[in-house]
Amino acid sequence: MNKWVYNFGDGSAEGEASMKNLLGGKGANLAEMSNLELPVPPGFTITTEVCTAFYDNNNTYPSDLAQQVSASISIIEKTVGAKFGDEENPLLVSVRSGARVSMPGMMDTVLNLGLNDITVKALAKKSGDERFAYDSYRRFIQMYSDVVLGVEHYLFEELLEIHKEENGVVLDTELEAEDWKALSKAFKEKTEEELGHPFPQDVNEQLWGAIDAVFGSWMIERAMVYRRLHNIPHTWGTAVNVQSMVFGNMGDDCATGVAFTRDPSTGENAYYGEYLINAQGEDVVAGIRTPQYLTKSSREAAGANIPSMEESMPEVYNELASVFQKLEAHYRDMQDIEFTVQQRKLWILQTRSGKRTAPAALKIAVEMVHDNIITKEEALLRVDPGALDQLLHPTLDPEANRDVLTKGLPASPGAASGMVVFNADEAEELSKDGKSVILVRIETSPEDIHGMHAACGILTSRGGMTSHAAVVARGMGRPCVSGAGALYIDMSQGTITVAGRTINKHEIVTIDGGNGEVMSGEVATIKPELGGHFNELMGWADNVRLLNVRTNAETPLDASAAREFGAEGIGLSRTEHMFFDADRIINVRQMIMSEDETGRRAALEKLLPVQREDFIELFTIMKGLPVTVRLLDPPLHEFLPHTDEDFVDVAKVMNVDMAFLKRRAEELHEFNPMLGHRGCRLGISYPEIYEMQTRAIIEAALEVSKTLGEAVVPEIMVPLVGTRKELEILRKLICDLAEDIIEKSGIKLDYMVGTMIELPRAALQAGEIANEADFFSFGTNDLTQTTYGISRDDSAYFLNDYLKADIYDQDPFVSLDQDGVGELVIIGVERGRKTKPGLKIGICGEHGGDPSSVEFCHINGLDYVSCSPYRVPIARLAAAQAALR
Amino acid sequence: MNKWVYNFGDGSAEGEASMKNLLGGKGANLAEMSNLELPVPPGFTITTEVCTAFYDNNNTYPSDLAQQVSASISIIEKTVGAKFGDEENPLLVSVRSGARVSMPGMMDTVLNLGLNDITVKALAKKSGDERFAYDSYRRFIQMYSDVVLGVEHYLFEELLEIHKEENGVVLDTELEAEDWKALSKAFKEKTEEELGHPFPQDVNEQLWGAIDAVFGSWMIERAMVYRRLHNIPHTWGTAVNVQSMVFGNMGDDCATGVAFTRDPSTGENAYYGEYLINAQGEDVVAGIRTPQYLTKSSREAAGANIPSMEESMPEVYNELASVFQKLEAHYRDMQDIEFTVQQRKLWILQTRSGKRTAPAALKIAVEMVHDNIITKEEALLRVDPGALDQLLHPTLDPEANRDVLTKGLPASPGAASGMVVFNADEAEELSKDGKSVILVRIETSPEDIHGMHAACGILTSRGGMTSHAAVVARGMGRPCVSGAGALYIDMSQGTITVAGRTINKHEIVTIDGGNGEVMSGEVATIKPELGGHFNELMGWADNVRLLNVRTNAETPLDASAAREFGAEGIGLSRTEHMFFDADRIINVRQMIMSEDETGRRAALEKLLPVQREDFIELFTIMKGLPVTVRLLDPPLHEFLPHTDEDFVDVAKVMNVDMAFLKRRAEELHEFNPMLGHRGCRLGISYPEIYEMQTRAIIEAALEVSKTLGEAVVPEIMVPLVGTRKELEILRKLICDLAEDIIEKSGIKLDYMVGTMIELPRAALQAGEIANEADFFSFGTNDLTQTTYGISRDDSAYFLNDYLKADIYDQDPFVSLDQDGVGELVIIGVERGRKTKPGLKIGICGEHGGDPSSVEFCHINGLDYVSCSPYRVPIARLAAAQAALR
Repeated sequence: MNKWVYNFGDGSAEGEASMKNLLGGKGANLAEMSNLELPVPPGFTITTEVCTAFYDNNNTYPSDLAQQVSASISIIEKTVGAKFGDEENPLLVSVRSGARVSMPGMMDTVLNLGLNDITVKALAKKSGDERFAYDSYRRFIQMYSDVVLGVEHYLFEELLEIHKEENGVVLDTELEAEDWKALSKAFKEKTEEELGHPFPQDVNEQLWGAIDAVFGSWMIERAMVYRRLHNIPHTWGTAVNVQSMVFGNMGDDCATGVAFTRDPSTGENAYYGEYLINAQGEDVVAGIRTPQYLTKSSREAAGANIPSMEESMPEVYNELASVFQKLEAHYRDMQDIEFTVQQRKLWILQTRSGKRTAPAALKIAVEMVHDNIITKEEALLRVDPGALDQLLHPTLDPEANRDVLTKGLPASPGAASGMVVFNADEAEELSKDGKSVILVRIETSPEDIHGMHAACGILTSRGGMTSHAAVVARGMGRPCVSGAGALYIDMSQGTITVAGRTINKHEIVTIDGGNGEVMSGEVATIKPELGGHFNELMGWADNVRLLNVRTNAETPLDASAAREFGAEGIGLSRTEHMFFDADRIINVRQMIMSEDETGRRAALEKLLPVQREDFIELFTIMKGLPVTVRLLDPPLHEFLPHTDEDFVDVAKVMNVDMAFLKRRAEELHEFNPMLGHRGCRLGISYPEIYEMQTRAIIEAALEVSKTLGEAVVPEIMVPLVGTRKELEILRKLICDLAEDIIEKSGIKLDYMVGTMIELPRAALQAGEIANEADFFSFGTNDLTQTTYGISRDDSAYFLNDYLKADIYDQDPFVSLDQDGVGELVIIGVERGRKTKPGLKIGICGEHGGDPSSVEFCHINGLDYVSCSPYRVPIARLAAAQAALR
Repeated sequence: MNKWVYNFGDGSAEGEASMKNLLGGKGANLAEMSNLELPVPPGFTITTEVCTAFYDNNNTYPSDLAQQVSASISIIEKTVGAKFGDEENPLLVSVRSGARVSMPGMMDTVLNLGLNDITVKALAKKSGDERFAYDSYRRFIQMYSDVVLGVEHYLFEELLEIHKEENGVVLDTELEAEDWKALSKAFKEKTEEELGHPFPQDVNEQLWGAIDAVFGSWMIERAMVYRRLHNIPHTWGTAVNVQSMVFGNMGDDCATGVAFTRDPSTGENAYYGEYLINAQGEDVVAGIRTPQYLTKSSREAAGANIPSMEESMPEVYNELASVFQKLEAHYRDMQDIEFTVQQRKLWILQTRSGKRTAPAALKIAVEMVHDNIITKEEALLRVDPGALDQLLHPTLDPEANRDVLTKGLPASPGAASGMVVFNADEAEELSKDGKSVILVRIETSPEDIHGMHAACGILTSRGGMTSHAAVVARGMGRPCVSGAGALYIDMSQGTITVAGRTINKHEIVTIDGGNGEVMSGEVATIKPELGGHFNELMGWADNVRLLNVRTNAETPLDASAAREFGAEGIGLSRTEHMFFDADRIINVRQMIMSEDETGRRAALEKLLPVQREDFIELFTIMKGLPVTVRLLDPPLHEFLPHTDEDFVDVAKVMNVDMAFLKRRAEELHEFNPMLGHRGCRLGISYPEIYEMQTRAIIEAALEVSKTLGEAVVPEIMVPLVGTRKELEILRKLICDLAEDIIEKSGIKLDYMVGTMIELPRAALQAGEIANEADFFSFGTNDLTQTTYGISRDDSAYFLNDYLKADIYDQDPFVSLDQDGVGELVIIGVERGRKTKPGLKIGICGEHGGDPSSVEFCHINGLDYVSCSPYRVPIARLAAAQAALR
């Protein structure tokens, strides 16, 4: 005989926590608590195997199921001392679904099952509260009719409204026992009217109706769609939990509450919770009555008067506290517990690991290690790496009011308030005067960098999560909301228009880079504090992880910040960012506007010393560590003069006329610059540019090596390679020059030449390309752009539509698309290492700071990830978790 | 004992044509001709195995080689009746390399080997021409010193120049025997000065020096690079051919010439060639003397007086004619033959298949089938499909002078002359007045289409081989040169500036779309004629090929042309091209400028009837055949108003103010439109657009079915899909609507819904996507763009640099990149058919008309290719060849 039903309660159970597949999550958990001899209302679980058998056998149950259910009901009756359907002392039960994982779309709960026209009277008598009894009854009729019988909810709401109107009553609480009695009757009649047969009075019919409904809901459309989207097999099935009801609203010796074994907000090791005397679970959350404090100390800290549970029900409270200890010790984690006190008897209805803020998660995890409750490895797995952002950036005070204007993309975390300013120069000026500034642009460009540095936050109406604004802001640790498309920014008028409102220049706005909200006025923020717990956890992470973590940085500020956050080198230094300083851009412009090599070389001659100085500074900060320098990558036209003054300046330096310059600027225009004359294509067309950069890098490395006695290992990276031949040509150019400079210097210097794998073709041809490369670095931003055919600057137009329609689970520029882009990464790694075993391989796209992408990199054998400085701790922790999993 | 040496000549040979691997191409061919008992100067071939053995054994020869060579020399001596190194009657030989395939970079030829201070005198005596003998000697010294001994060529040229100057002589022909004698001496001395030892007088030393040099040149840098680039294994090795010299310049009973067995220009079945009395082979090609006609009829046709060979040397000519017959019959192809007559004795030096024009290739192939010389299958393989372009388009008269201004990309074949016009409207007007017009634009856009139709040629300064201009021009059969970057087009001035010259509006230019040349003034063109031969060959092709050939067309004109060219359906109909007519664009603009669905629907309502009419017309033309219609694909901003008048018009229709319109236009701007809000992303964001198009397609198909009783099978194609979910959503939208319309009509109609595979992710996810698709069509233009990360509109900037540096063998937008893009196609086919065996798969990029890409499609099991109308015959022939190979 198959065992289809597992009993629990009364200090023991036939199941346990490990039997989730058979009993579902809820059932296994109730069994576990029973085994811990906690006061769990007795009940039983019908296994998931019944669900499977049901569907395998033409929607019929195993023949011996009814008998097993009936036997389990008898056990509950015996334990509780009440009888199902009894006229004097009726047993009431709840019926709930419970799959292996929580699953929206399925039938959830029927409470108070077992009530009928007769048992309701017994309940009234036993509780001494007729109003309670009939309110419970009408609730049961409504709930059962809705979820089991399919009579729509609103029909009952209508009846209730009509009744209240007829009786001149506004609130449900004003209704008396007689009202509920009348409504119970009306509800039953409505159900009969809808179905053509009466509401079931037979409690066993009620029970089997509810069981049928749970199993039936496994195959309804919504549940099936959910399972398909989340890859949950239909064969898993759901369990059904039947449990005796307990009531916290039977009088003043009753209560109900929720509690955390530690403070979920701060992580402090002190009980935290709320309770209400003579109330139902719903009342605590519904906000009709104000819940009271659980402990005396928290009541006192809040300056409240109404006694805490510790004071009003000391014995039950002590019993509850011992449950807290037992559960936390057993589950070895902070618990979120629901309880009910029925006539001084404590019942535990649920326990689960409690949700917590990032600071709390950190504190709890580290303290539990100190207290020998969990291991360091477990502690590492307990903290969500993504949530570390909260620790590193200011956040909005959750108590403060928000006047939300619109929502953009949460492009760089943190919150900031400041004056609206529309250009970088003004941002810098006002910031020097001590003003807080939010730089607002349609989209930023490299020329705005000084303004972005000066601003305390950046807001754009265009661009996705990896637009220029987003990438640079994350690098600098500035909050940023990008792609807020509803904003209409009128630079000339100095106004932002949004949803019919106008924000003028210098008005204050607040942005929340954590959720993308843009608010009018100032909203209070909370400053982050990085304590010893943080460093301790990071230290454990470093001991565990196999992936190295580098940073994407080119400014001394970013590089220093990243070293402080634990970066083990630079994985991407974008040399073009060094070209935008006022004293350099003129020479850069001279270079690109020149029509011949001589003109370009003259300009490059002037750029060489400044670029070399940049590298000396960067290499000095990073001494002892590897630094990957990417040669010039963006389309030249990004450096074009914009204003007429710019043109005049360039014309003067070059000694040419304006007509020539304008024509040249027109020539350099590209329709799709992302797919244009950029990356190594520039190195092929204008080798003199890469020569200058190679010289600057190698000379700087030699200089630092001489001065400090400790060198970096420059890794020279050629961008946008698509064929072996490109890298072959450029590698020769770089190495010939580098060898020459090194030989003449008489100093020993190691360096490497490698490439970014950022085009689908490069990934496919990795076996060939590896012949010419000392290392690979996956540029997953560009690889995502080309694999999907989506420009990150333009994706904001339809990204929302795509997320809404469930086409993307996540913005592919934020979390690596493991199916598509990921397959190319895997192909690239395999083919690259087949040609050159042990080839050093990293990733330097924005995905390097995304936890699930970091895990992907770990699984696929990459050597390192590189991410913006403020994401370095996230990557360190994510890498540790990946190693542990 | 290994056989290292194979003799030939004197009516027999030890080798034959099939032994190319052992004897190299040249050696095998000389053997074959000897076996045919043709008069080949006797000689021998040292096999490629000697080369391999040489390198395998530390650069030493097999021990028995010397003896075998010496024996073969004796055989030549016996045959020729002269002795190697003999003081009276010396044998002279040539030494040549000869690998399996012709290979630049290797040592080529040493002539007159065997001459020294003594034998030169014998040669003078024997020939009776001392000048000839010493000229030959100094040539030998120079050639041998250069290629065998490594003394640089220019050193001898210098001596010659000095000698001429000192003797007041300008031309070589003015030099006498004594001069050459003196120079021979000086040359020898120079060689000795350079090398430190005298020029070898021992003929055997000379011979082995030359043999060493041939084998040595197999491993020089240039040859190795060439082999790497062409995937030729180093182990193949080269052979060495040693052959007795014959002289056509020993007197008036000597001659030399080249001949074709049929006219290589027209294909006419008549001997064709040139000869010179008392001359060397070089003289015929060098142009110092004017060669004479071979046959009497050709001399007469040209109105020339100097006797033809047929007249001046009738016996030798008859002998030659019989050689022609023998060789053509033997090789079963038109032959290109080199011959020399030495003292009335005919010698055949070389035969090979003759190069020919496309008309000649066609005529020869078809006539040879008629004459039972070759099979139809062989005929199909004899015609280069790419060359058919010459048959379909006018070409420039090769005799005409060309004043070439610059060179762009050969974007659409054919040649045309006309007035320079800078805008489409003017092009249309002038064309109505009967003027020939070349439309000159920086780049064309869909709005220029009427002007492109009106023009007889299109010239742009931007854009690659698959830019808008190129694609549309090929579709229309208009010649086009694109991406002529050296042109500076000043629209406002109405001028083109190029290389310091200015071309004004309405001046005449000529473009050659076959080679990309842009010329000043009018250049005469030759009109094509498509005769019976063409149709006959195409018919044979259709019987053989397995691939279907469809066309890319949307206008009735293109569709009709394509059907005439044999298209078996439409593989790509770009619906957006239908949106640009003056009476429609206003409604399209209204649609995209609307901010909400209501506004868009109002505009779509007006577009529905016109779009339906388009389809009715198209389906009527294509009745009985499948028609693939691609739903709206380009980024909406392509349809934006340009001029202020445009804006005013739209504002009027929409009843909105200009500020709104300008703002909206700004909002729609994209940084990288190719990667922007386009393709199925439009269908997801604005389902009403795809609904309108689906309705237009289905209603049109029903209408045609009703009227003609014969329907098309519309294949509705969703562009730019990257995930299964996109197609799932849109397929449902299309099918729900289509079913509804069909059901209401009461008529039966088959239709399909499929997708373009044009993103790397789509190819990788083809297994998933196939679940939702009735067919796949590879959009290899876009797939190339994203796989390489190159926009076809911007590639012109660096494409030349890339082709020059051998990074690309061919523009990847012209011929499918089989390594990278091709791998994605293969992956897409495999995964798609794994999910859905028998899934219908085609290709509709521009590659569909490229022969090697067509072959790739055949090999990888595609069902059809689709190309522009004028490429349909090319694809038909290429498909037949692929099937035959």
